[in-house]
Amino acid sequence: MNTFGTIFRLTTFGESHGEAIGGVIDGMPARIAVDTDFIQAQLDRRRPGQSKLTTSRKESDRVEILSGVFEGKTTGQPIGFIVRNENQHSADYDNMRDVFRPSHADYTYQQKWGIRDHRGGGRSSARETVSRVVGGAFAMLYLREMGITVEAYTSQVGSVVLEGDYKDYDLSGREDNAVRCPDPETAARMANLILEVQREGDTVGGVISCVVRGLPVGLGEPAFGKLHARLGAAMLSINAVKGFEYGRGFAGAAERGSEQNDLFEPAPGGGITVGTNRSGGIQGGISNGQDVFFRVAFKPVATLLREQETVDVRGEKTVLKARGRHDACVLPRAVPVVEAMAAMTIMDNVLQNKIWQN
Amino acid sequence: MNTFGTIFRLTTFGESHGEAIGGVIDGMPARIAVDTDFIQAQLDRRRPGQSKLTTSRKESDRVEILSGVFEGKTTGQPIGFIVRNENQHSADYDNMRDVFRPSHADYTYQQKWGIRDHRGGGRSSARETVSRVVGGAFAMLYLREMGITVEAYTSQVGSVVLEGDYKDYDLSGREDNAVRCPDPETAARMANLILEVQREGDTVGGVISCVVRGLPVGLGEPAFGKLHARLGAAMLSINAVKGFEYGRGFAGAAERGSEQNDLFEPAPGGGITVGTNRSGGIQGGISNGQDVFFRVAFKPVATLLREQETVDVRGEKTVLKARGRHDACVLPRAVPVVEAMAAMTIMDNVLQNKIWQN
Amino acid sequence: MNTFGTIFRLTTFGESHGEAIGGVIDGMPARIAVDTDFIQAQLDRRRPGQSKLTTSRKESDRVEILSGVFEGKTTGQPIGFIVRNENQHSADYDNMRDVFRPSHADYTYQQKWGIRDHRGGGRSSARETVSRVVGGAFAMLYLREMGITVEAYTSQVGSVVLEGDYKDYDLSGREDNAVRCPDPETAARMANLILEVQREGDTVGGVISCVVRGLPVGLGEPAFGKLHARLGAAMLSINAVKGFEYGRGFAGAAERGSEQNDLFEPAPGGGITVGTNRSGGIQGGISNGQDVFFRVAFKPVATLLREQETVDVRGEKTVLKARGRHDACVLPRAVPVVEAMAAMTIMDNVLQNKIWQN
Amino acid sequence: MNTFGTIFRLTTFGESHGEAIGGVIDGMPARIAVDTDFIQAQLDRRRPGQSKLTTSRKESDRVEILSGVFEGKTTGQPIGFIVRNENQHSADYDNMRDVFRPSHADYTYQQKWGIRDHRGGGRSSARETVSRVVGGAFAMLYLREMGITVEAYTSQVGSVVLEGDYKDYDLSGREDNAVRCPDPETAARMANLILEVQREGDTVGGVISCVVRGLPVGLGEPAFGKLHARLGAAMLSINAVKGFEYGRGFAGAAERGSEQNDLFEPAPGGGITVGTNRSGGIQGGISNGQDVFFRVAFKPVATLLREQETVDVRGEKTVLKARGRHDACVLPRAVPVVEAMAAMTIMDNVLQNKIWQN
Repeated sequence: MNTFGTIFRLTTFGESHGEAIGGVIDGMPARIAVDTDFIQAQLDRRRPGQSKLTTSRKESDRVEILSGVFEGKTTGQPIGFIVRNENQHSADYDNMRDVFRPSHADYTYQQKWGIRDHRGGGRSSARETVSRVVGGAFAMLYLREMGITVEAYTSQVGSVVLEGDYKDYDLSGREDNAVRCPDPETAARMANLILEVQREGDTVGGVISCVVRGLPVGLGEPAFGKLHARLGAAMLSINAVKGFEYGRGFAGAAERGSEQNDLFEPAPGGGITVGTNRSGGIQGGISNGQDVFFRVAFKPVATLLREQETVDVRGEKTVLKARGRHDACVLPRAVPVVEAMAAMTIMDNVLQNKIWQN
Repeated sequence: MNTFGTIFRLTTFGESHGEAIGGVIDGMPARIAVDTDFIQAQLDRRRPGQSKLTTSRKESDRVEILSGVFEGKTTGQPIGFIVRNENQHSADYDNMRDVFRPSHADYTYQQKWGIRDHRGGGRSSARETVSRVVGGAFAMLYLREMGITVEAYTSQVGSVVLEGDYKDYDLSGREDNAVRCPDPETAARMANLILEVQREGDTVGGVISCVVRGLPVGLGEPAFGKLHARLGAAMLSINAVKGFEYGRGFAGAAERGSEQNDLFEPAPGGGITVGTNRSGGIQGGISNGQDVFFRVAFKPVATLLREQETVDVRGEKTVLKARGRHDACVLPRAVPVVEAMAAMTIMDNVLQNKIWQN
Repeated sequence: MNTFGTIFRLTTFGESHGEAIGGVIDGMPARIAVDTDFIQAQLDRRRPGQSKLTTSRKESDRVEILSGVFEGKTTGQPIGFIVRNENQHSADYDNMRDVFRPSHADYTYQQKWGIRDHRGGGRSSARETVSRVVGGAFAMLYLREMGITVEAYTSQVGSVVLEGDYKDYDLSGREDNAVRCPDPETAARMANLILEVQREGDTVGGVISCVVRGLPVGLGEPAFGKLHARLGAAMLSINAVKGFEYGRGFAGAAERGSEQNDLFEPAPGGGITVGTNRSGGIQGGISNGQDVFFRVAFKPVATLLREQETVDVRGEKTVLKARGRHDACVLPRAVPVVEAMAAMTIMDNVLQNKIWQN
Repeated sequence: MNTFGTIFRLTTFGESHGEAIGGVIDGMPARIAVDTDFIQAQLDRRRPGQSKLTTSRKESDRVEILSGVFEGKTTGQPIGFIVRNENQHSADYDNMRDVFRPSHADYTYQQKWGIRDHRGGGRSSARETVSRVVGGAFAMLYLREMGITVEAYTSQVGSVVLEGDYKDYDLSGREDNAVRCPDPETAARMANLILEVQREGDTVGGVISCVVRGLPVGLGEPAFGKLHARLGAAMLSINAVKGFEYGRGFAGAAERGSEQNDLFEPAPGGGITVGTNRSGGIQGGISNGQDVFFRVAFKPVATLLREQETVDVRGEKTVLKARGRHDACVLPRAVPVVEAMAAMTIMDNVLQNKIWQN
């Protein structure tokens, strides 16, 4: 239930305001150099307090690796890690012990288990994604040796939409601004919108796009384990995600087959390729060697810094206003989470596919 | 790889033009009356040749149940079943032995396994969904005793879009027309579009919407097993699906939190409810007792009854024109497949949730 | 629950007196020639009625392969198969509808599921092992290409014990007698004991030994997936098995470390080997390249052709005497089942280990 | 691979001389009071240095619980925990960096992964069982509320064998002596043998017996998930275990059916029971409500405090003598490990069985 993946597997634990969060990475191949700076850098991209667009909570989010690494290399054994929780203001949540925050998991957790850690959302907090970023960073250490890259970026914030697609931009530029949008001008408009929404005590949703390059042909399984079904499940497991599409996605539902089919043609250096990539790099659930690209819809954060009507555990009406420090838009900090989940999904498929190779 | 689910599990086998397709249902509770007419009726909704909108292939698709049922009731033991393939015109596919059909799985399967059954798409054929419909029908036998219903319908074909949402229609009316759209007028326009596209030798995509009613609070798991992540993976595993969204989905990415939050309020008969259901019945990955609704995007079928340029296994250019009998739009026949996958996902979660109940 | 294995997976279904038994093999590598004579030969070794030592039931046990094989080779897709049940004398079991046979699964199944197919033991019948033999035969088709062999033999029937160990015999000789013991003289004594017990309407237990040769170094996982833990689970899942030991097993519990350790030494052609193999070919849960050998204890069959006191479903005392045709000793027919389970376990580990190889 | 169980799941990580060992317990029901003294007491029973019979290494083995517990109760969320490694004398192992210890996992790990943490056996060290004891203790917290008890004891050390079976002793007495044998006189002889073997720089094996009382009818699955197959896999996954038997086990292979069958009879207070329990509490893989009992064979520890011939990583002969502090017999410290693995297996089956209950 708290494990992701079949061969490359991440098991996570931890609540927002508990002792620590962490996890176990199982299935990491041996003899891979562990670049701890790279891992920490991924965490820093997810960290609160990194810009004025994000929550002002200060957490250093330093990862401690407890096992599975020997003299700087992976050993093939499980990698246990923890990240201590710091700077929790648990008292900020005292008023939520007996109240259900609208569109949060408070009510459903209480009903399912009859008990919940109400502080900061407990297990349902997006803080759990810290562990995913660590898992994803290990996957990336392996994938980059294969020449596979995973790049996500903010392509929509509220009504501000980045035009064109990933090929129109130098995606490395996404790290030059706090929104993580590769176009500086659009990024500025997105940032202004977030600040405006923040001032109103409101929140706003958006879309993160992601492209995976350098994939070999053959990743994915027929029937239930289609590569895009695995990617979709990974993305939909991220807090606040409401939709996933790849290739032409929902827009393609309005098209004809003659518009959407990718015609095969001889590849310049021999072999076979396609002239277009409307399929999004996957055919019959299996990667065809083209770029895999997909889009992920995020709802606006449910925690508002303004009053909302709600109900307490006794079923009585009350009014709630969040205290504390919260993001008005999660997209900028969710970009590395999308990348991490994509990297782990691809990693799992790369390892799985080794079984069928001669 | 060919198994769906964790507790209620369907394992499928079979190719389009092989001896038979079938599967094993494991985890079906005991002492459930097996209504074989209901199961067959679900298969009939998916069957080719049911209307002039679908392929004219004639297959009776009679299911043989081989085990797990004793004196008309399930025994808790695995249910093996087969459906014999009939009326295959394998010769129609002789020209595809050495040619890769555009946007089909021919190329990726060949690359992954070095061998493929080219007849009718083999394992990658949507004929595999016959087994899913059988699995879904068994799930429904159980769910309907709990008062849970699953209803899907065609909400878009190409540019023809059904207005409003599921609450605006009597969904049982979807079975009164060949398109499976609950609004007769829109259904007629969809049908006309399909026939027009068919005449052109082209194909067209669309969207299927689905609503699940009667769910208890508490289905789903935190972190990776969120209910909507499981539903999304199920839908994305269906042939030709390119996107999944639930609740406000992609449209909600443009909204504010104050627009999208569902405020709790006292339920009329005691307890707690929400005044709106923009969340789509799931909060924090766990059902909240409201209707779960979602939308599934289908691409246009890749098989065109017109010439397309492609490449053969030697990498040489060739021109391909499908022979045989094909659907110009899969949506009408995919409706029961969406329902089946949703029913199995819900069933699996219902059984899983029994573990945590006292 | 009815699936065995993680990558090479067999899912079985079927009851003794139902329509058919069968299964699905998932994870079989592609492009392996399917030797149907070999598969049928394995089934024939398990078949009832093959000698006067076994039940006189006549079942041809012909396997029908329904998918996953194209033009004589595996395709990497799931292999569905069925074996029709024949020659059932269901009426022989009418008296068992309401009675619990001693030391059978009747009572526990009834209590667990509230319903059971009482005819011939239903799902709990050893007839289920037909499907395992088919799965094992497919595994062997792959393993023999790698030079891995699996040979089991009867090493004890009641008080008659084969002296020495597997290296003292030409194991191929086990197929020259009905007991499947490689020493003709011991086999004759075992056969006489079985016939004597049969005449008494009683049954007798025994031990099957098994050796796997040709294994590479490196199969198995640390912690919970130790190779011998996987083999043990496989063997203990066979009907009537009560014990499993490998290497020096229970006898080694009385020994000193200095007696049992295997000392490493340089291998003749380079590399490293061990002078002895008291470990049974596994160290730390991982194969070391030596022969893997183990022993499996079978209890005497519970069905006696003599009167036994028991209780009916109403809790009232009654007397039961089995009708029909039953084995007085299952060992001869269980030899191919032990081999099949061992072959599938090894196969699963061979495929799993490919993940970690460069 | 490093995860045990299907619903109640323990994932472990950590090496003998790394930062810490630990794990994640997933599937623990909510609202169970967490008795940390009880958990620590289980660890203390496994701890080194607890008597003169065990290694003199001093490790306090204090468990830190990091998540999943709120205000003293479980929340249904994953329980992360760590135990810091202390008092490692890693230098004691410097001579093993390039040498393969006989009958240890050094060689097979090196061959499988091409790298290993040689200090103290690394991942293959029995220190990994610390995490199992924590997992088992949580399982016991739940099981004892159901009235289920798990008691293991040392029944054989080398040639010293405890007479009779579990019913002949008050098992709580096993904790009154360092060997954990319920008969004081036999325990004294076992202790003397261990001290004698210790003085010789040798080691000795033995057998641990275990009984589980208070089980409901119905735990276990047919086919591959038989309760005893799950128990056997659990036991065989413990370091140094070479055999598993339940009920009459290997001894029963020499018996007749008429000797071994358990006859049903009316239970005194209504219902049905058996007069004998030769089956060991399981029929057809499913618990029948009687005591489940089994025996586990341990080989002598491979580490000898005397010279042994071996080979180094270059394949050259060398002589090895262990330095440091080692057990001459693991049985006394393995008793809580056997109990922990049994408790987790039973717990997993208890939760699984809730699925099928109405």
